Amino acid sequence: MNTSIPPDDTFLYEQLATTISKLIDIGTLKPGDRLPSVRKLSKKRGVSISTVLQAYRHLEDSCLVEARPQSGFYVRPQVRNRPTEPAISDPPLAAAEVEVGELAMKGLEAVADPAVVPLGAAIPSPDLLPSVRLNRALATIARRAGPEINTYLLPQGYEPLRQEIARRALDWGCSLSRDDFLITCGCLQALSLCLRAVARAGDTIAVESPAYFGVLQLIESLHMKALEIPTCPREGLNVDALAQAIEQESVTACLVTPNFSNPLGSLMPDAQKRALVDLCARHEIPLIEDDLYGDLYFEPPRPKSLKAFDRTGLVLHCGSFSKTLAPGYRIGWVTPGRFAKEVRRAKMASTISTATPLQMALTEFLQQGGYDRHLRTLRRAFASNLERMTQAVGEYFPEGTCATRPMGGFVLWVELPEKVNAMRLYHEALQHNISITPGPIFSATGEFGQCIRLSGGYPWSDRIEQSLQTVGQLAYAHL
Amino acid sequence: MNTSIPPDDTFLYEQLATTISKLIDIGTLKPGDRLPSVRKLSKKRGVSISTVLQAYRHLEDSCLVEARPQSGFYVRPQVRNRPTEPAISDPPLAAAEVEVGELAMKGLEAVADPAVVPLGAAIPSPDLLPSVRLNRALATIARRAGPEINTYLLPQGYEPLRQEIARRALDWGCSLSRDDFLITCGCLQALSLCLRAVARAGDTIAVESPAYFGVLQLIESLHMKALEIPTCPREGLNVDALAQAIEQESVTACLVTPNFSNPLGSLMPDAQKRALVDLCARHEIPLIEDDLYGDLYFEPPRPKSLKAFDRTGLVLHCGSFSKTLAPGYRIGWVTPGRFAKEVRRAKMASTISTATPLQMALTEFLQQGGYDRHLRTLRRAFASNLERMTQAVGEYFPEGTCATRPMGGFVLWVELPEKVNAMRLYHEALQHNISITPGPIFSATGEFGQCIRLSGGYPWSDRIEQSLQTVGQLAYAHL
Repeated sequence: MNTSIPPDDTFLYEQLATTISKLIDIGTLKPGDRLPSVRKLSKKRGVSISTVLQAYRHLEDSCLVEARPQSGFYVRPQVRNRPTEPAISDPPLAAAEVEVGELAMKGLEAVADPAVVPLGAAIPSPDLLPSVRLNRALATIARRAGPEINTYLLPQGYEPLRQEIARRALDWGCSLSRDDFLITCGCLQALSLCLRAVARAGDTIAVESPAYFGVLQLIESLHMKALEIPTCPREGLNVDALAQAIEQESVTACLVTPNFSNPLGSLMPDAQKRALVDLCARHEIPLIEDDLYGDLYFEPPRPKSLKAFDRTGLVLHCGSFSKTLAPGYRIGWVTPGRFAKEVRRAKMASTISTATPLQMALTEFLQQGGYDRHLRTLRRAFASNLERMTQAVGEYFPEGTCATRPMGGFVLWVELPEKVNAMRLYHEALQHNISITPGPIFSATGEFGQCIRLSGGYPWSDRIEQSLQTVGQLAYAHL
Repeated sequence: MNTSIPPDDTFLYEQLATTISKLIDIGTLKPGDRLPSVRKLSKKRGVSISTVLQAYRHLEDSCLVEARPQSGFYVRPQVRNRPTEPAISDPPLAAAEVEVGELAMKGLEAVADPAVVPLGAAIPSPDLLPSVRLNRALATIARRAGPEINTYLLPQGYEPLRQEIARRALDWGCSLSRDDFLITCGCLQALSLCLRAVARAGDTIAVESPAYFGVLQLIESLHMKALEIPTCPREGLNVDALAQAIEQESVTACLVTPNFSNPLGSLMPDAQKRALVDLCARHEIPLIEDDLYGDLYFEPPRPKSLKAFDRTGLVLHCGSFSKTLAPGYRIGWVTPGRFAKEVRRAKMASTISTATPLQMALTEFLQQGGYDRHLRTLRRAFASNLERMTQAVGEYFPEGTCATRPMGGFVLWVELPEKVNAMRLYHEALQHNISITPGPIFSATGEFGQCIRLSGGYPWSDRIEQSLQTVGQLAYAHL
């Protein structure tokens, strides 16, 4: 919120950015060209320097231009051979018991091993996070706090932290109070509490296809069933398909990642979001929203959460700081809507409350300011990583390979030609000390045998580029 | 382990302590009498000074004598009107769906409110914990750690912490390695992971009667059923009764607190423990052990865990630092035996891992030494609290009131005369700003309508004594 633009400037800078973007599109401005200096353009267009800067930063966020220190803004090299996007998924309409297996664990293990190139797990590199400032906030709390740091909190969690999150909820289009929130041990616990609050063993949960394997594991561990719904790589869950599924199957709840879903990176347009919320409201189906990646948009504005369209209290919104600030802290939240009591009970029965010192440290960090500035930098890094990754896939992977074009988050979903066996490719890559995530673990019904997910959570490097070249070569051998 | 006694001295100091204890018993040494000085007794008995000191400390741990600074050891005032012990419980033999309700939450809320006398929740007062030293360890970690403090750990948790716990496991009679452990968000998460690993919705879990309401809530939230087994206030779960229940009902798993169960404070003798483990092994029934209070024994040695008798890997041992060191940290552990894979998966699907910085800080604290010294002080404080609490119950509560005689932990279970309504008493006490825990929440079948649990987790004070007097007066009015 520190970096938000005064509303009256918004129109001007967006107009300017659009003009320049068009000039790049039609080739008037070519890769490597220097943009006019900020001062010059400000004079020429009769707008303020800050408006020009906003426009340039906006273009930078969209990966169209890049800033070079002491030199100015330059048009970025555009992706050659950009792979086409994969088609909408077409899973079988049958609720399936889930069995994701040990594979997910391997992804985490790979990240812990410095010998392995971490293209597998969707974890932001600690080097991209303000870990030093965070540690300082933690040390401050540890020095300053009295014995109250060493007591249980209520299940709802630390009030000042809930206050900070409630303030941020305005960005997602939600006007909520601190009392609407409950602090969890990461987003996954939030989702777990929600599922336990609204469904029970044997019940069917509608999810995206492909779906985040952690969600599939969670559904498996609660002995529920997953029903995979066709999902568009660009616009997310297909609401019509869900409507049809609801007619044919008994769906107890939906669990959806509307903003930059994992692994597709898809973003539901507002109209789709509204349609989804309305559909669930009509059928009285609780809608669990995983908004873990919502703050990692490459182009403003911050996409709205499903909760912003909720009028019946059926939407349970979940989020966390794990992908943007503090993976090691395991702190997330849920706004459980009308299921507040059930979620509070499930929390009390799971971990009673979330660790006190870390909630206090995170609050200290947020109150100091600068989180939004950090997010800005982080988004740019992820956007750039994904852009380069896309370029590498286009260059090194076999012809016919498709890849998503995420507008946020930091994972890329790659669909290889039919003959490629993703599970085999995964094992072969691991032999070369490269961790990727094979497609089949994103499905309870064994779909996506030719797909892989690549994570762009680590700073781009020659080592990463070479790894992608290796993965491409390995894939060629399958043809 | 720092304070452990060289084995060759053990016999001598125990013999000496027994002799003195007998002299107190038969009245030769009366309350208020000063024991011979350490030096004098050492000379007289021809034993070392340290042996006499060990004997005196042992008597102190057993609440028979007390040390007065600069003066020596004195026989403590013994409890007048010590209430008789309650009888063994007799719950109906029928698995029940659990509905504990909001009451448990109220106990936590009461602790957060300084206006309320906290005799309800079983929480150790932060004033009795080395919170300052713990904060210092946390600050050290926050200053010293690099970015690795801000990454996910594997579900198993921080290796050096598991190493520290494995070392301590020798005290419980277990020779385990760090790889046998998985770190959890408190003991309750450990129990939750175990239940999810070995049972599913609809299954029946055998528990003690009365049972810790958190366990009942957990079983409720997993949509399992609780089967309450008769339990002796002194010796814990009745193994014969369990054997009978297993013949008549389909029991999927047992969940037992062998050492200082909550709320009874009962301690299973070793023979009973062995019988329980063998019974479960014969029927291939997983046995989940909640050993949360095992380190809080009033008389050495540290009681063995069920795990110490386990030869088939069917015992899942759970513990934590929440009652002895760091309630606010929410750090516990589980040794899942042959269910390691299932528990790891359940952990991965619940919170992925436990927060990194706090695992590091706790390790730092443990490695610095002094934890055992702290435990020693803490045990003495709890023993003394319970002793005074028992005295107050004997003095202020209606005739016919029974109370347990726990040999560890810090809760007292009080059975009032039949006409007393514990739920009403609970509400009335709260009107007087006194929090107690009503008996019925320790049962899924609505037993214990005339019982309450009192917590001795806070340092004794006139305010606490007066509160007990008030509760007694309120109870009289029910007659």
